[in-house]
Amino acid sequence: MIIVMRNDATMEQCQRVEQRLKDMGFKTHPIYGEQQTVIGAIGDTKGAALDAVLNMPGVEKIVPIMKPYKLVGRELKRDDTVIKVRDVSIGGEHLAVIAGPCAVENEDQIFEAARIVKSLGADILRGGAYKPRTSPYAFQGLEELGLKMLREAASEVDIPVVTEVLDTRDVELVSEYADILQVGARNMHNFRLLREVGRSDKPVLLKRGLAATIEEWLLAAEYVMDAGNSQVILCERGIRTYETMMRNTLDLAAVALVKQLSHLPVVVDPSHGTGLSALVPAMAKGAIAVGADGLMLEVHPDPSRALCDGQESLDPVQFGILMDEVSKVAGALGKRLVNGKAKPA
Amino acid sequence: MIIVMRNDATMEQCQRVEQRLKDMGFKTHPIYGEQQTVIGAIGDTKGAALDAVLNMPGVEKIVPIMKPYKLVGRELKRDDTVIKVRDVSIGGEHLAVIAGPCAVENEDQIFEAARIVKSLGADILRGGAYKPRTSPYAFQGLEELGLKMLREAASEVDIPVVTEVLDTRDVELVSEYADILQVGARNMHNFRLLREVGRSDKPVLLKRGLAATIEEWLLAAEYVMDAGNSQVILCERGIRTYETMMRNTLDLAAVALVKQLSHLPVVVDPSHGTGLSALVPAMAKGAIAVGADGLMLEVHPDPSRALCDGQESLDPVQFGILMDEVSKVAGALGKRLVNGKAKPA
Amino acid sequence: MIIVMRNDATMEQCQRVEQRLKDMGFKTHPIYGEQQTVIGAIGDTKGAALDAVLNMPGVEKIVPIMKPYKLVGRELKRDDTVIKVRDVSIGGEHLAVIAGPCAVENEDQIFEAARIVKSLGADILRGGAYKPRTSPYAFQGLEELGLKMLREAASEVDIPVVTEVLDTRDVELVSEYADILQVGARNMHNFRLLREVGRSDKPVLLKRGLAATIEEWLLAAEYVMDAGNSQVILCERGIRTYETMMRNTLDLAAVALVKQLSHLPVVVDPSHGTGLSALVPAMAKGAIAVGADGLMLEVHPDPSRALCDGQESLDPVQFGILMDEVSKVAGALGKRLVNGKAKPA
Amino acid sequence: MIIVMRNDATMEQCQRVEQRLKDMGFKTHPIYGEQQTVIGAIGDTKGAALDAVLNMPGVEKIVPIMKPYKLVGRELKRDDTVIKVRDVSIGGEHLAVIAGPCAVENEDQIFEAARIVKSLGADILRGGAYKPRTSPYAFQGLEELGLKMLREAASEVDIPVVTEVLDTRDVELVSEYADILQVGARNMHNFRLLREVGRSDKPVLLKRGLAATIEEWLLAAEYVMDAGNSQVILCERGIRTYETMMRNTLDLAAVALVKQLSHLPVVVDPSHGTGLSALVPAMAKGAIAVGADGLMLEVHPDPSRALCDGQESLDPVQFGILMDEVSKVAGALGKRLVNGKAKPA
Repeated sequence: MIIVMRNDATMEQCQRVEQRLKDMGFKTHPIYGEQQTVIGAIGDTKGAALDAVLNMPGVEKIVPIMKPYKLVGRELKRDDTVIKVRDVSIGGEHLAVIAGPCAVENEDQIFEAARIVKSLGADILRGGAYKPRTSPYAFQGLEELGLKMLREAASEVDIPVVTEVLDTRDVELVSEYADILQVGARNMHNFRLLREVGRSDKPVLLKRGLAATIEEWLLAAEYVMDAGNSQVILCERGIRTYETMMRNTLDLAAVALVKQLSHLPVVVDPSHGTGLSALVPAMAKGAIAVGADGLMLEVHPDPSRALCDGQESLDPVQFGILMDEVSKVAGALGKRLVNGKAKPA
Repeated sequence: MIIVMRNDATMEQCQRVEQRLKDMGFKTHPIYGEQQTVIGAIGDTKGAALDAVLNMPGVEKIVPIMKPYKLVGRELKRDDTVIKVRDVSIGGEHLAVIAGPCAVENEDQIFEAARIVKSLGADILRGGAYKPRTSPYAFQGLEELGLKMLREAASEVDIPVVTEVLDTRDVELVSEYADILQVGARNMHNFRLLREVGRSDKPVLLKRGLAATIEEWLLAAEYVMDAGNSQVILCERGIRTYETMMRNTLDLAAVALVKQLSHLPVVVDPSHGTGLSALVPAMAKGAIAVGADGLMLEVHPDPSRALCDGQESLDPVQFGILMDEVSKVAGALGKRLVNGKAKPA
Repeated sequence: MIIVMRNDATMEQCQRVEQRLKDMGFKTHPIYGEQQTVIGAIGDTKGAALDAVLNMPGVEKIVPIMKPYKLVGRELKRDDTVIKVRDVSIGGEHLAVIAGPCAVENEDQIFEAARIVKSLGADILRGGAYKPRTSPYAFQGLEELGLKMLREAASEVDIPVVTEVLDTRDVELVSEYADILQVGARNMHNFRLLREVGRSDKPVLLKRGLAATIEEWLLAAEYVMDAGNSQVILCERGIRTYETMMRNTLDLAAVALVKQLSHLPVVVDPSHGTGLSALVPAMAKGAIAVGADGLMLEVHPDPSRALCDGQESLDPVQFGILMDEVSKVAGALGKRLVNGKAKPA
Repeated sequence: MIIVMRNDATMEQCQRVEQRLKDMGFKTHPIYGEQQTVIGAIGDTKGAALDAVLNMPGVEKIVPIMKPYKLVGRELKRDDTVIKVRDVSIGGEHLAVIAGPCAVENEDQIFEAARIVKSLGADILRGGAYKPRTSPYAFQGLEELGLKMLREAASEVDIPVVTEVLDTRDVELVSEYADILQVGARNMHNFRLLREVGRSDKPVLLKRGLAATIEEWLLAAEYVMDAGNSQVILCERGIRTYETMMRNTLDLAAVALVKQLSHLPVVVDPSHGTGLSALVPAMAKGAIAVGADGLMLEVHPDPSRALCDGQESLDPVQFGILMDEVSKVAGALGKRLVNGKAKPA
C-alpha cells in the first residue's frame, strides 16, 4: 500500500509513520517529492490496524494496492467455479435458468408455477417463504408452511429449489427444504448471516446489496468462503440510483467485470433489476450477451393475482417466448441452456 | 390512492380494474380524461394486495396518496416523543450527546474513554462490541467480553451506554449490558432484527441505512413500533452518493424533514457521516442548527492508535472544543446540552 | 394531473385550489377521502403555471399523469424513426457502428484511424476536435484544424463523420465539416445549444447527461425537435453512481425502456460507459442484445499513445474481434450490421 | 503520482513504463512488491499525456497524489478571498444574503421583491431573466426585458444584483446589467461559458453541478480563474441522489470541506437544495453553522402566484423570520450579517 503524507507534513512526521509501519512488519519505501512525500509499504495488510496509521499526524490518506479479497479472486483460482445442484451445473458452458414466483402463496399457485417453469425449460425453481418487505404491513410470506409447499411442488416435477433465508436462526430449517440458500440484497451486509450460511453445506446464492459496490459484494462472498463454504453463486439484481422510472438500475457491466475478477458464477435477476415485466426479456438477452452464467426470473401463473412483485413477473406465455429468444443469443455465443433449446453454435 | 391507466387502455380494462378495487373494499372515483383515465380509490390499503392490481391489463402505475407509515407519523401523535434513559432525556428541549470509541478495544481504552467523555459533558457512552466490517479479515470486536468492559467502564463514571446488536440471537445478551440497543446502518433492512428489538423493553437507536430513503427509514422504525417498542431514536449517519472525498454524504435536510414528518427524536452522527475528523465539529454545529435532538460522536483517547475508524475520531481536546462550540449554537436557538455548558438564550 | 391536498387542508383551501384550476382552463374532479382530498384536473398543462398552484395553501404535491414530452414519444409517432446520413441508415433493421478516436490528434493518427475503422466495418467515423475536459490543463482538442483533418480523413475512405460541438457560436462552423453534430453528456442540459442544433439541418447525436434521468434526456431531445430538427439519435453513455471501479454505470435497461417510450434511434457508447477497454466487447454485445440501434466505440491506432481516454480505447485487433462477435449476436436477433458481416438469422 | 502495475505484469512491461515516464520528464521510483509493482513518478503532470501511460501493457491504474487544481487551492493562497461587490463583501467575517425571486416575471413583481428583500436585510438581489428549464414548454424567462427590469428595481432600492447567464453569446449583454454573473448548476460543465465569464471583470457565482464531485466543482472554478477572473463565489445547491422526497440533497459537509481546500467564498442555496420552503429556514441556519459565507434564497412577494419554483420560495414574512433566526446563529459563531441584525458574540 501507499501512505500519502499531507503536503505540510514535517520530516519528523514522515519518519514516525515509517517507523510505525516497520514496527507492523512492513518493508518501507519513502519517496520524497517536491511538494509531498509518499511511503510505499510492502507486506501483508491482513489484520494490520491501518485505521490507526490513517490518523497519525501528517497522514493524508492510504491507497491500498492489493485487492482486499483473496478466496473469491482469480489470483488464487484461475478456472471458473462450477457449482453442481443435483444434476444442474451453474457456471462454465451451461446457462442455468432459475424461475418461479416472488412468493409461495398457496398450494395451487406453487404447484402450477413449478409445472410451468419446468415444462418451459427452467433448471431451478424459486419461491419465497420468508419475504423481506419494506412495510411491516405487507405480506411477509408463509414461513415454514411455504417451505413445505415449495419442496413438494418441486419434488413433483423433479427440480431443485432456491429460497431465501432471512435470519441466522432459520438457516438450519431452510436447509432442510432448499437446495440453494438465497441471501437477499437487504442482507448482503448481514455479516452474521453470511457466516452462518458459510457453515452450511448448501450452495449460497448471494444477491448484490441495494447500493453495494462491487468490492463490497465480493467481500460478502469472501465472508461465506472464509467460513468454509466455497459454493457461492453471485446474483446481480440492480442497484439504487437517482433514476425513478425503473425499480433499480441493472448493472450488467458489473457482471462482465466480476467475471474477470472472480471465478465464481454470476447470474442476473432482470425482474428485480428493472421492476417492469416489459423490460425483462430484453435484459435477459443482454445478461447472457455480456457473459452471465444464468438468469433468475419471476414467473407467476397469473401475475395480475400475485401477492408480491406482480408488475415485474412474467406470465407463462411471456416466459416461453423469453426462453426461445435467450436460447438464440446463447447459441450465437457458443453456450447452451441446460434444459432449454439452445444448440451450440 | 390513484390508479393511472395506460393511454391505450380500453374502457373494458378500466371497468375491470374498478370492479377489482370495489371487490377489495375501496370506493372508486374514475376520471376519464381525453387521453388517459385515472381511478381514485378510497379505503384502507393496509394489507390490500395492490401488487396484483398493478399487473392487471391496462394499468400503468399506482400513485399512493396516504403515507405508508402510521405509528411513527405526526398524524397520530403530534407531540415530540421524549425518551428517558436513566436520567437522560432524548428529544424535546434538551440535546443529548452520545460519545465514545468506535470499538471497545481493551479495558484501559474504554475506561479512559468513559472518563473523558463524561468529564467533557457527554450524556451517553458509545462503544462497539460487535463490529460489522466490510472485510472478514478486519477486527470484528471483543463480543461479550467487550460488552462487560463497556458496562463496567460506564458504571464507574455513572453514564448510560449504547451498543450495537447484529444478530437476532444476541438481543437478549446485549440487553443485559446496554441501556440502548443500536441497530446499525447495515441492518436497517434486517427486518427480523427490527422485530426482535421491537420486543425488547430497551430504547432502540436506529441508524439510517447506507442508501435508505427517508420513507424506508421511517418504515424500519414502524417495524420496531409495530412490534411493541415505541422508544425509537432515529440516527442520520450519511448516505451513499457518487462523492468520494468523504465516506458518506451527511443528509442534514433529512433531519429537518423527519422532524416534521415524525414525532421521534433524531440524532446525527457526523463521524460516520463524513469519515473525516476535521469536518466533525462543523457538521455537529450544523446538525444542532437544523434541529437535531442530539449528536453521536466517535471520541477516542488516542485516535492514532484506534483499531477502527481512527480517521474520523476526535481526540479529547478536539471533543472538548466541539462541546463548547455546539453549546453556543444550541444556546442561540434556545436549547441546551443536558450535561454540557449551553445556557438558554 | 392530480393535486394532492395536505391532510390538514381545510375545505376552503380545497375549493380555492379547485377554483384556480378552473380559472386556468382545467376540468376538475375533486375526490374527498376520509383523511385527504385529491383533485383531478383534466386539460392541457403546456404553459400552465403549475408551480404557483403548488404553493397555494393546503397543497401537498402535484402528480402529473401525462408524459411531459410529445414529439419524441410513441404516442404521436408509432413507427421507428430511421435517420439517413449519406448512405447509412440509423434505426430500424440495420445496426450502425460509429468508431474512431476520442480526439483528433494529428493527421497521421486520424487518417490511420479512418482507414482502420472503415476496413473493419464501421459505418461512421468519430473524432473530437473540441474536447470538454474536467481540468483546464488537459488537452482541449485541435479545434478547426482538427475538424479539417477529420473531414479529409473521412473523405479519403468515404465515410460520414460525427463530431462534438460545445458552443452555440461553433454550430455553423462544425456543420461545415460534420455529417452529424454531437451534443455531449456535459451539454445535455445546455438548452441554448440544444435549440441551436435544433435549427441545423444536420442530424444530432444527443448523449445522455452524466446524471440525467430518462425523462430529462427525452426532454432534451424534445428541445431539439421543438426547434425544428427531427433527426435526433439518442446515445446512452453511462450514468454516475456510487460505484468507482468503472468510469460510469452503463444503463442498458434505459435503452430498452427508451425504445418503448420513443421512436428515436438509440445507440450505446460502452467506451465511456465503462471506461475500461476490457469490458467494451461484452457491453457492445449486451447493447445489441437489449435492442440498441448501434454502437459508438473509441478505437485508436495505438491506445497506449492516445492523448485522451486511452484506457477505454480498443486497438484495431480488438475492434475487429468485437465486430465479429457483435455480428453473431445481431444475426441471432434477425438484425445485421450495415457494413459488417452479420447475416440475417 | 503512483503507477500501479497489474499483478501479472512482466518485468519488461514495468521497465517500459518506467522508461516512458522518464522520457516525459518524471523522476521514477519503482517499488517491487511480492505480488505487484508500483512506480512512483515525481514531476509536473500538467499537460502530460497520462491517458496514454494508462493504456500501456501491464498498467492497472494511476493514482494521482497532487491535487489537480492550483489557483483555487489553499496551497497557493492561504487567506480567505473576500469579494467586493459595490459596498458588499462576500467572504471573511461578514455573511452575505442574496435573495429574490426565481424569475423576473413583470415590473410589479420584481420591484416589490427588491423592496422587500432590501428592507428585510438582504445584501444582493437575485432574479432570473434567462431560465434553464427541463421542459421546452416551461416559462423560459423575459430575457433582455427581464434584465432591464431587474436592474431598475435594484437601482431603486440601491442593491447589487446577480443573474444567470446561459450562453457564451450573452455574457457581454448580461454584464451590462448585472453586478455578479451566475453560472447555473446545469452549466457547471459548460467549459466554454466558464472561459467566457473568466474573461469578464464581473464576479462569478458558480453553482455546483447537479451531480458534480467536489473536485469537478473546484476544477470548474479553476477554469474561470485560469481565464483571468479570480473573483469566484462558489454556491452549494444540493446534489442528485436516490432520495425523492426533496428536490436535491443539500451537501453541507461539502461546504465545510471546500472551506478547508479552497480560499474562495462559499454560499449555500437551501431553496434549490431542498425544493421545499418548509425546510429552508432550518437549512439556512445549518449552512451558517457549518461555515458558509452567505445564503442564496428564493423570496417571492406571493409564492402562490410564482411562475417558477413557487414551492421552494419564501414569502416576505417567512423571510423576515429566517433573517432573525440566522442572525442568532451567526452571532453565536462571532459572525454578523452585512445588513441584517446579528451582533458579534
